[in-house]
Amino acid sequence: MLARILAGMQYFGEATEKPIAPGRMVNIDTDLPEVELAPGVRSRPLVGENLLASFVRYQPNSVAPMHAHQEEQVFIVLEGELEMTLGGEVRLMKAGDAALIPAWVEHTVRSLSSPAYQIDVFSPPRKALLERLAEL
Amino acid sequence: MLARILAGMQYFGEATEKPIAPGRMVNIDTDLPEVELAPGVRSRPLVGENLLASFVRYQPNSVAPMHAHQEEQVFIVLEGELEMTLGGEVRLMKAGDAALIPAWVEHTVRSLSSPAYQIDVFSPPRKALLERLAEL
Repeated sequence: MLARILAGMQYFGEATEKPIAPGRMVNIDTDLPEVELAPGVRSRPLVGENLLASFVRYQPNSVAPMHAHQEEQVFIVLEGELEMTLGGEVRLMKAGDAALIPAWVEHTVRSLSSPAYQIDVFSPPRKALLERLAEL
Repeated sequence: MLARILAGMQYFGEATEKPIAPGRMVNIDTDLPEVELAPGVRSRPLVGENLLASFVRYQPNSVAPMHAHQEEQVFIVLEGELEMTLGGEVRLMKAGDAALIPAWVEHTVRSLSSPAYQIDVFSPPRKALLERLAEL
């Protein structure tokens, strides 16, 4: 029990420096802008300093074409089914599935007959998405 | 239409360098280890190079105490309700709500009478969580 409390104290440490920016709480659908990444594939990005979270909705039968990028990516399925091809492996991903995509690993994602919803988080923030946002 | 196609080509560019590591597709509940962060607060971490995604389940009436850290954080609620205090503002966060937590911004999260599920993504990977993982 003491070990658990001490471990918790270590994990939940106090601030030792000043914040570099204020925190921000948002509702994804109402507070974030929307950009189209491909026909039927739309992202709402939340942009930080080291991180960019992209909340992506797929219409049925939509494709994020095969691509690769320097930014590391975590991919998380929230709703529906998405067929992911990652480094040559093809898998049907559902809520509760996730992927880690290191720099320059090629990947493609497509929805099937239903809509789907997933999160990508990039570090550093994905340059191509920042450029799309700047176009708005 | 052409502008859309060109923008898509730009977003979905090809690899110009070799991958630094293979990609990895996982089921969060069956493939990732579990660590206890506080009583009733358990994380399953997916660890990358620049990113660490932490899938966190709260039992009812559980608390992640007020804390701050150098790593930038994105917080995303998936299920249930979580009361977040961030930089002095208190908000009840539900599925569809998210927060951006810059370095050293103090925050605390607590569940109410129901369980809850949320994702944290840190960049760089949160050192204190890597240490908890190393203890396993």
